Amino acid sequence: MPSEYCTQRQIEFSDTDMAGIAHFSRFFVFMETAEHEFLRSLGTSVATKWQGNKIGWPRLSASCEYLNPVKYEDVLDIHLAILRKGRTSMTYQFLFTKDGVEIARGQMKTACCICNAGEELRAIPIPDFVANQINELPPASPTT
Amino acid sequence: MPSEYCTQRQIEFSDTDMAGIAHFSRFFVFMETAEHEFLRSLGTSVATKWQGNKIGWPRLSASCEYLNPVKYEDVLDIHLAILRKGRTSMTYQFLFTKDGVEIARGQMKTACCICNAGEELRAIPIPDFVANQINELPPASPTT
Amino acid sequence: MPSEYCTQRQIEFSDTDMAGIAHFSRFFVFMETAEHEFLRSLGTSVATKWQGNKIGWPRLSASCEYLNPVKYEDVLDIHLAILRKGRTSMTYQFLFTKDGVEIARGQMKTACCICNAGEELRAIPIPDFVANQINELPPASPTT
Amino acid sequence: MPSEYCTQRQIEFSDTDMAGIAHFSRFFVFMETAEHEFLRSLGTSVATKWQGNKIGWPRLSASCEYLNPVKYEDVLDIHLAILRKGRTSMTYQFLFTKDGVEIARGQMKTACCICNAGEELRAIPIPDFVANQINELPPASPTT
Repeated sequence: MPSEYCTQRQIEFSDTDMAGIAHFSRFFVFMETAEHEFLRSLGTSVATKWQGNKIGWPRLSASCEYLNPVKYEDVLDIHLAILRKGRTSMTYQFLFTKDGVEIARGQMKTACCICNAGEELRAIPIPDFVANQINELPPASPTT
Repeated sequence: MPSEYCTQRQIEFSDTDMAGIAHFSRFFVFMETAEHEFLRSLGTSVATKWQGNKIGWPRLSASCEYLNPVKYEDVLDIHLAILRKGRTSMTYQFLFTKDGVEIARGQMKTACCICNAGEELRAIPIPDFVANQINELPPASPTT
Repeated sequence: MPSEYCTQRQIEFSDTDMAGIAHFSRFFVFMETAEHEFLRSLGTSVATKWQGNKIGWPRLSASCEYLNPVKYEDVLDIHLAILRKGRTSMTYQFLFTKDGVEIARGQMKTACCICNAGEELRAIPIPDFVANQINELPPASPTT
Repeated sequence: MPSEYCTQRQIEFSDTDMAGIAHFSRFFVFMETAEHEFLRSLGTSVATKWQGNKIGWPRLSASCEYLNPVKYEDVLDIHLAILRKGRTSMTYQFLFTKDGVEIARGQMKTACCICNAGEELRAIPIPDFVANQINELPPASPTT
């Protein structure tokens, strides 16, 4: 069962700002898109239906440390790992590198929720069709 | 009855790109936000309810000519005018200036639609509570 | 010599708005990214150096017609064509389709400029290393 | 000397996503814009010149906790406080509320740098014209 996922992303012109580098807020979009690719790789989606309800994953928190800037056309290697698989939430860790050099380290904690239109969000235990497919990163992992 | 509306917007850091100027795609957000302020000035909203239906204004087309670049912290004067008030659609014209210098000229055509969740979008005649409050710009207007 | 280029793009969560569809301003980013991929396919870039100068392609105008909405995870087929290769400018046409259904049609006119830091933008004839690699779309083309 | 700054921001349509709420990545733009307003309130800017050098404030880290969602047209009260004024860096704390209800809590750590074009970023002690105008939030402050 996977606890990691790797993808890539090339910096677009509209990701950059007047400092000539990718704007710091874009890394949160990069994390989200990697998370969504990961969910698709499991055969599910961040926006899916289950037992007649809409299931979504609203964010509880997100953070990022910026170690080195990246520029237009740079290609980021993005390494996602499941830092913690809770009962109703998931904590992802993201490592961004370029040619092996660390660019940024992020985390994102999401809650599994019923997101039906017109109802309040309601946290639920992660359904088995997701929970049974994934594992937390083992504690001794060198990428932690 | 108004056919024009004026507002301002200061260029934010995240509006800029590596060329050091506001990214061209941002002008479409600036147009939209000016349109929404205009609708609020009429006592309505781009997302409202009417006779039990959700009313929205999806875009049919949008365009912009770029005459001069703007930079971080520049303040844009935005002049909106109703170029055409159709039966089911509205065409706005936008003039962006900075200290009297023309920066950009845009247009946006929107359709008045019922946008109920789970239904197809359906164009409807512009409801009287909007239509009766606004006029097309007279044809001889010097800003046309 | 190519006058067309095709690419794809999947709608991301952050491309969507509260109407549940890709926000209209995002199509201008999609056009730009397709343009940049096209330039890379020619061995150049939207931000390159030539004879000691920085060459860029600021936008003169951009427009888009919206025919059908697209949703999260939809995959757009993007077809770029060179509508006009001028002396100092280029006009691109973009056709967005999903499973063969037309989604949007756009145009973007760009000027070839010297963009040195601290200097005014200055339009120049398109350098041969780009101009000699591309052709206008023939007038009778069915995609015009 | 101020250690706090308050501003407001209304959620725009383009801030929202298909979940009908402001996208989590937008809060980082809201933090940045509040920081920049704060710097302007001190008579300086995030992009300024000093002793012939360009001074900028690249981000070292940023984080946000999301407590309650906000929707289109909601008005956020944004409360910025200087959590720590270091020798070369500044740590801001942001509290987002709506009608007194907590929406989000963020932090952003920035480094004061010389950002001359064509040179590597170089951290420097915060110049006096900024440092002498601001104070850390006192440790016992109830908003910490």
